Parts: sequence; C-alpha cells; structure tokens
Amino acid sequence: MKNNNTQLRPIWLDTSSDEVRVIDQRALPHQQIHMPLHSAADVIYAIKEMVVRGAPLIGVTGAYGVFAALKNAGTRPDEQGLRIAADRIIRARPTAVNLAWAVNRTLKAVLAEPDKSRWTDIARRTAGEIAAEEVENSKNIGRFGLSLIAGMAEKKSTGLVNILTHCNAGALACIEYGTATAPVYAAHAAGIAVHVWVDETRPLNQGARLTAWELGQQGVPHTVITDNAGGHLMQHGMVDMVIVGTDRSTYTGDVANKIGTYLKALAAKDNHIPFYVALPSSTFDWTLTDGVAQIPIEERDPDEVRYIPGAPRSREYLLMPETSPAANYAFDVTPARLVTGFITERGICRADAADVRRMFPEKF
Amino acid sequence: MKNNNTQLRPIWLDTSSDEVRVIDQRALPHQQIHMPLHSAADVIYAIKEMVVRGAPLIGVTGAYGVFAALKNAGTRPDEQGLRIAADRIIRARPTAVNLAWAVNRTLKAVLAEPDKSRWTDIARRTAGEIAAEEVENSKNIGRFGLSLIAGMAEKKSTGLVNILTHCNAGALACIEYGTATAPVYAAHAAGIAVHVWVDETRPLNQGARLTAWELGQQGVPHTVITDNAGGHLMQHGMVDMVIVGTDRSTYTGDVANKIGTYLKALAAKDNHIPFYVALPSSTFDWTLTDGVAQIPIEERDPDEVRYIPGAPRSREYLLMPETSPAANYAFDVTPARLVTGFITERGICRADAADVRRMFPEKF
Repeated sequence: MKNNNTQLRPIWLDTSSDEVRVIDQRALPHQQIHMPLHSAADVIYAIKEMVVRGAPLIGVTGAYGVFAALKNAGTRPDEQGLRIAADRIIRARPTAVNLAWAVNRTLKAVLAEPDKSRWTDIARRTAGEIAAEEVENSKNIGRFGLSLIAGMAEKKSTGLVNILTHCNAGALACIEYGTATAPVYAAHAAGIAVHVWVDETRPLNQGARLTAWELGQQGVPHTVITDNAGGHLMQHGMVDMVIVGTDRSTYTGDVANKIGTYLKALAAKDNHIPFYVALPSSTFDWTLTDGVAQIPIEERDPDEVRYIPGAPRSREYLLMPETSPAANYAFDVTPARLVTGFITERGICRADAADVRRMFPEKF
Repeated sequence: MKNNNTQLRPIWLDTSSDEVRVIDQRALPHQQIHMPLHSAADVIYAIKEMVVRGAPLIGVTGAYGVFAALKNAGTRPDEQGLRIAADRIIRARPTAVNLAWAVNRTLKAVLAEPDKSRWTDIARRTAGEIAAEEVENSKNIGRFGLSLIAGMAEKKSTGLVNILTHCNAGALACIEYGTATAPVYAAHAAGIAVHVWVDETRPLNQGARLTAWELGQQGVPHTVITDNAGGHLMQHGMVDMVIVGTDRSTYTGDVANKIGTYLKALAAKDNHIPFYVALPSSTFDWTLTDGVAQIPIEERDPDEVRYIPGAPRSREYLLMPETSPAANYAFDVTPARLVTGFITERGICRADAADVRRMFPEKF
C-alpha cells in the first residue's frame, strides 16, 4: 500500500534495533502511532487489544512473537518455555486460524534445529518468510479478483463497478494489498472505474476507520455506510458485487468473518449479487466441516459496544444507558450456500469441499 | 410507560400554557429535556431533526402542528396559509405515512367547520383524539402480541422468550406502550420471562439510546447488541422471535422501517424464526402495492454517519477520515415474503393483501 509515496506495511522488523514494530491501528485514521513489540507479552497485548488485527496480520505478528520470545531468552532458550509462550500467543484470539498456523509453523522450524543458538535467527527468518508469502498471496488474490471485476465492468453500461465490503480486509489486515481489497486496488490500477461501499463495521469501526483510510490513501472512490445500509443498496441495484475477507473458512466453504458478514451474504443472495470471499490458503481450516457449529466465535468486552472511542482516545462516549448490558460477539459464520466463490492465491473456486480440494490437493 | 412512577408520554399539551411539549429524544438517555413547540416551524424542526421520531408520534406531532399554526393565526386564520403550513409539515420527513395521515385528518376536520373562530379548538381536539386513539391502538397491539409471546413461552423448556427488535418502536415512538414493544410490556406484566436483544440501530442509535432506556425504566431484561450481531444470535438459537415497528407498510405486506430491518428479516427467514411487524392501521399505506419500488426512502445528512453525538451534545466524535464521504439512507423495505405477520390493533394477520383486507375491509 502506498502512503506518502512509500510502501507502508502494518508490521515490520526495524533493522537497526532488530525489533518488531507495528502501526497501532486503534488510533487510525486520526493518528499514526508506531508501537514496538519487545516480547511475547507485547505481542499478546497487541493481538488481544487489536493494536493489530486481520487474519494474515495477526498470523505474522504471532510468528514474530516467537522470535521476540527467543530473542529475550538469549543464548539459552528453553524449549518448554517457548512452547508455553507459543501457546499463549495462539490463545490471544480464538477465531482467526492464521494465528495458530503461523505460530506453529515458526515453532516447528525452530524446534527442527538442534543448535539452540540458531533458534532466534530461524524464528526471525520464518516470520519474515510468512510475511513475504502473504504479500505474494495478496498479489495473486488481486490478480485473480481483478478478472471478476473486469468481467463485471464489461457487463455494466456505465463501466462503473460498485463493490461492497465489510470490516477491513485490506493492506492493514494483511501485509500489503490486502485480501478483499487486493482485487479493488488491482482494478483501480488497471483503470477500471470502481467505487467501494464501506460498511462502517461496528463496534470497532474498522471499515470507517481503516478501509476508508486505506482507500483514500490510494485514491479509490468510496463511501462509508452504516452496517444497516447494504441490504437497501442491493435492493436498488447499487451494489454489483460483495468481496469480504475471512478469519477462518472451512474447506467445505463456510466463512467466519467479522460479525455482520452473514447478513450481507443473505442480502446478496436475495438480490442475485455475487458474494466473494478473498483469502490466502493460510486462512482455510482444513479440519472443520461445519462452520456455524464448529468455528469458535470470540465474545469481546461489551464496553466496545457501549462506548465509542474518538480522537484523542482518552475521551470515550457512552452510547446507551449506564445500566443497560451489552453483548459483543466479534464474528459470525456465513454458510457455504451463500458464498459465490473463494478468491485465493491460486485462483477462484466454488465454496465447496470438492472445488477447494481441486485448488489445494496437497492439503488433503 | 412508567417513569418515576408516573405515566410518561413523549408529547403532551401543557394545559396551563396551552402549548405542545415534547421530550427532546436526541438527548436521551443521558438527559431529559422538554421542548415547547410554539409554531408549525417548531414542529417541522422537531420532526426533521428527530427531536421526535417514530411513525405514530410524528403523526401526532404533525397534527399538533396544525393546532400550533392556527393558535398563532389568532381569530382570523387563513385557509390558504393553513394548507401551506400543513403541506410543509407533511414534507418534513418523507417515509412515515402517519405524518400525512394525521395532518390531513386534522386539516379536514378543521376545514369542515364554517366558523373559523372554532378552528383552533377543533385542531386541538383532533390532535388529542389521534393521540388517544394511538394509545388505544398500542394497548390492543400489546394484547394481541402477548398471545404470540405466550405461545412461544409455552413451547420453550426454559420459559424464557428472547425477542429481537430494531430501532425504537416503543412508547417514545408512539404515545404510550409502543408498537413493537407493546407485546413485550404486556408479556412482562403478565409474568412471562422475556429478554430483548436491542439492535443499537446506527446511525442515530435509537435502540441503544431509547429502547434500552425504555426497557430499563420498565425493568424488562435486555441486552444491547450491534446491528451486525442478530444473524449470529439467530444461527445459534438465541432469538425466538423478531418484532419490529414500521414507518409505512403497503397493504400488500411490504414493510418500510428503519434501515437494517430487511437484513434481520432475511436472517429470521434463514433460521426459521418468526418475524412480526407491529403497527396501527394509521401506518398502512392503502395506495401502494410494491414497497421496494414505491415507498420513498429518506436520505439524511451523511454527518449522522460520520460523527457520533455524545453527552454533552456539543462534543462529537469523528468516526472516519475527514475526507471520506458517507451516505445515510434512513429506511429500507422488507418484502412481504419475509414477514411472518402483522400485529395490528384489530389482531394478527398475514402480510398479504387478502388478509390485510379481511382485517380492514373499510379501507378498500
């Protein structure tokens, strides 16, 4: 993602200090704050408190957490301590499968090396590899998704393609380009007229705060709407396609994503609008078959619903009676029957086990 | 509605000053501010700026606007001036049909009287009659809706009925009891265990601010959720029925209500959960047959999406980049096929022309 003419990533290794740094996404779009992550505890805090968020990004952050733990352990790292730290990182958030995937991959690479003095280097390198692979995945997702948008543009007399997205599955959720936004950026770069309806995405407003900011940085036309508005827009022909990301999808096609995604999928189906899910293979759960029943849905602090943060952060507004309780489910699951297709780094497939297997045979 | 052990109405005629007064609903739940409406212009402001909102209430407020206009005209009211004022009041908000209905009824009653010196009295009386009828309608809607909740309670092993509602169709939207909340209050009074999932209802948070406050005043257990959450709750058996109000329903069953209602209707259908719409007959549009195509949907100031008001009101938080545009559609239409039934003051009927006709034969 371009920002002030440089490629901006939400996470990077500061080479002079050998420290992991992230953008504190809680402060966007009003402030750009960088936060160093010195330890596994810092990484857990950053993931839990959503300093970083988005499935691919929390995977990479988790991998760097293994690196931070080893760096702090110095020349005599302890395997059991490392395993405990890794387990704690994995448990920071339950829904996104990338977190466990990336942490376990890094741990496995480390433990395969008998010489413990090399563990820190291996963890650093593995985390960097995962980050590089996610960039490559996003590029490919953009390339494949572009073909869908180009096809839609040809069908429309105006040439303008209206795309609705929910939450932020952009560069800020990934490493560069994003998942759901990668096809949008690719289409915009290819000169196709795109306009994005950005669901604000309550309670934490990742759409209004992050997706709108990203798209604005790139000069992509967009309009922020409440999460309530998408159904009405679809009824009136104002949405041509929906593209969202996912925190975990079963290989049978069920898609866990930010709470509210399911409602948009229902509305898309009801209005014969394609509903695509863009994801790297690191977001597939190869073990589950029934997303609604089996994918754990995080329940977060109700105060995220009750109060709304602003800039500066210390001032928060109470939205409701002090005494009324609130509930805060963070994700929901969109059943495979509502998903038109998956846009993956290997191409586009149907949201069913047979077609996902065709695309990723080595996973079965 | 009880409040501090007195019946509280959102609008009343102050007998000592002969002035209309309303609760400024923009300040709830943090402050209770009463606002006098001295003129038709005040009434238009109150309706446009949502000092008062909710279909039955803006109908009654509009009727009192005719009264205020006549009172200010003194002993020599001008028919043409009155017609212009009435027309302006009707155009204050486009979606709710009650506004035109109540204003026209009051105007008609006034103009039927040859003695102009009696016009102010007739307008005052007619507005009061409409208010009294809406109270009676709400009571009856509560009585009929109670039977649905009682039936659901019998079917549930726990005896607890979970009801989801969107926006505020409570006493604050009506005169007393409400439409969607009237059955809830009736069930609570009858000793049935009810719990209400309250959609916060962005952008103006009528659910979080008003419905939660009303239910809290009455001691009805409730939980505020984001508008995104309902689908997930329904997937997991946590919602037994949905009851909403409406701003305008076609006699063929299509329901315009606060934006986002349609998404909840889709989710209810997808999860085999009954979706009821509670309304007095003053909210039916007897002329339209296709709600999605024909009901005008108000588009309001995008700043309602971009900023969120808090207490005190002068401090507002910007939710998104300063430069990103926002859109603000206020209502959407839920097609008849997604509506389980209408709860009206005459009883419960299917959301189709034949059954609505059976219930209200005199309208055809």
